[in-house]
Amino acid sequence: MELIYQGKTKDVYSLKDGNYLLKFKDDVTGEDGVFDPGANTVGLQMEGAGQAGLRLTKYFFEILQANDLPTHYVDADIDKAEMIVQSAKMFGKGLEVICRYRAVGSFLRRYGMYAEEGQSLDGFVEVTLKDDDRQDPPISADALDMLGILSLAEYEEMKDLTIKISGIVKEELAKKGIELFDIKLEFGRTGKDKKITLIDEISGGNMRAYKDGVYIEPLELERLIVSE
Amino acid sequence: MELIYQGKTKDVYSLKDGNYLLKFKDDVTGEDGVFDPGANTVGLQMEGAGQAGLRLTKYFFEILQANDLPTHYVDADIDKAEMIVQSAKMFGKGLEVICRYRAVGSFLRRYGMYAEEGQSLDGFVEVTLKDDDRQDPPISADALDMLGILSLAEYEEMKDLTIKISGIVKEELAKKGIELFDIKLEFGRTGKDKKITLIDEISGGNMRAYKDGVYIEPLELERLIVSE
Repeated sequence: MELIYQGKTKDVYSLKDGNYLLKFKDDVTGEDGVFDPGANTVGLQMEGAGQAGLRLTKYFFEILQANDLPTHYVDADIDKAEMIVQSAKMFGKGLEVICRYRAVGSFLRRYGMYAEEGQSLDGFVEVTLKDDDRQDPPISADALDMLGILSLAEYEEMKDLTIKISGIVKEELAKKGIELFDIKLEFGRTGKDKKITLIDEISGGNMRAYKDGVYIEPLELERLIVSE
Repeated sequence: MELIYQGKTKDVYSLKDGNYLLKFKDDVTGEDGVFDPGANTVGLQMEGAGQAGLRLTKYFFEILQANDLPTHYVDADIDKAEMIVQSAKMFGKGLEVICRYRAVGSFLRRYGMYAEEGQSLDGFVEVTLKDDDRQDPPISADALDMLGILSLAEYEEMKDLTIKISGIVKEELAKKGIELFDIKLEFGRTGKDKKITLIDEISGGNMRAYKDGVYIEPLELERLIVSE
């Protein structure tokens, strides 16, 4: 296998059968030693973070597959912190699709003139470009279409999938008394028919979850959802 | 008449008949003494800027009215730099609707990963919030709707008006050999039926216009379009 990309929290290898291998690392995003799923920098290392992220991802991806929602997931080896996935083409140089149930983070930094911290947002979907140099700017469906990143029809499909997938994650968390504030998903196109498919991961590293008003760290979330 | 608002480039007075009076000032937006229509600060004063802005606004608003496009324009007194307008309700605390024909300014600062400076954008419309503290963040139709600023149907109507109005301004400029790169419009709701109506002004202060590859300053634009 060949290393083709080193990400902030994962390395990507290509396999001979056309699939890819994602190696989950113990690095998590944040600033000044504090975890922040919205940050663009790797702020700290947490032992076991890679395995925990993979365990949660496997857990959620299997539930999504059982619900006929498209993911790139093929198989996982938790001990090695490795996941096998289908080949997928990113949209442009990468998008983040955010589903928001409460106004926190970058939403509040942008729209704080019109929203109170923590107010309910009822599964609001927005898209940002993955572009560290430009602080991951938000982008409209029209702009995505005009810039050739994805079509308006693909946007609608991606938005619809985001609402369904995020809703399932929210429900799973609710079973443990945990509230999902927001979640960040990534999509790509897979196969000959360029099917819009959930890629990357679903773990504590890309969501904000709270229990009894207290934020739950990624490793703790994995423990509450999978291990208990 | 009563002063009800002091803006960066205009003061607003309420009149007894329900209309408003806009007093155009000689202040123009920019930074460090350089004019910039996208800036949030008043960078300099130019003698005659208020009258020139009003003259261009009157010129364009009368053309728009002749084309059955809704504006708040009632009358103007160029000598006094005063314009009488209908009462209009802003969307939220104010939006800017930008129509772009070439990639420059904030568009390029946000989407420079996908666009070359000066590339054609074919009348692309985007909306930003008027919020100096948050650097006028871009906002999607879905977010405007969710935050109660305007409905999706109103958004579509505003976008359609923006394309028509900007197209007319672009044509008028083209008659003088001037190319419109982008223009920033404002809309509000007027009358009992809350009709979506162009408000504020159309002048050199809210567009970027070029002739033979050279940027045209607001006062020069007024001279080229109206006085010659």
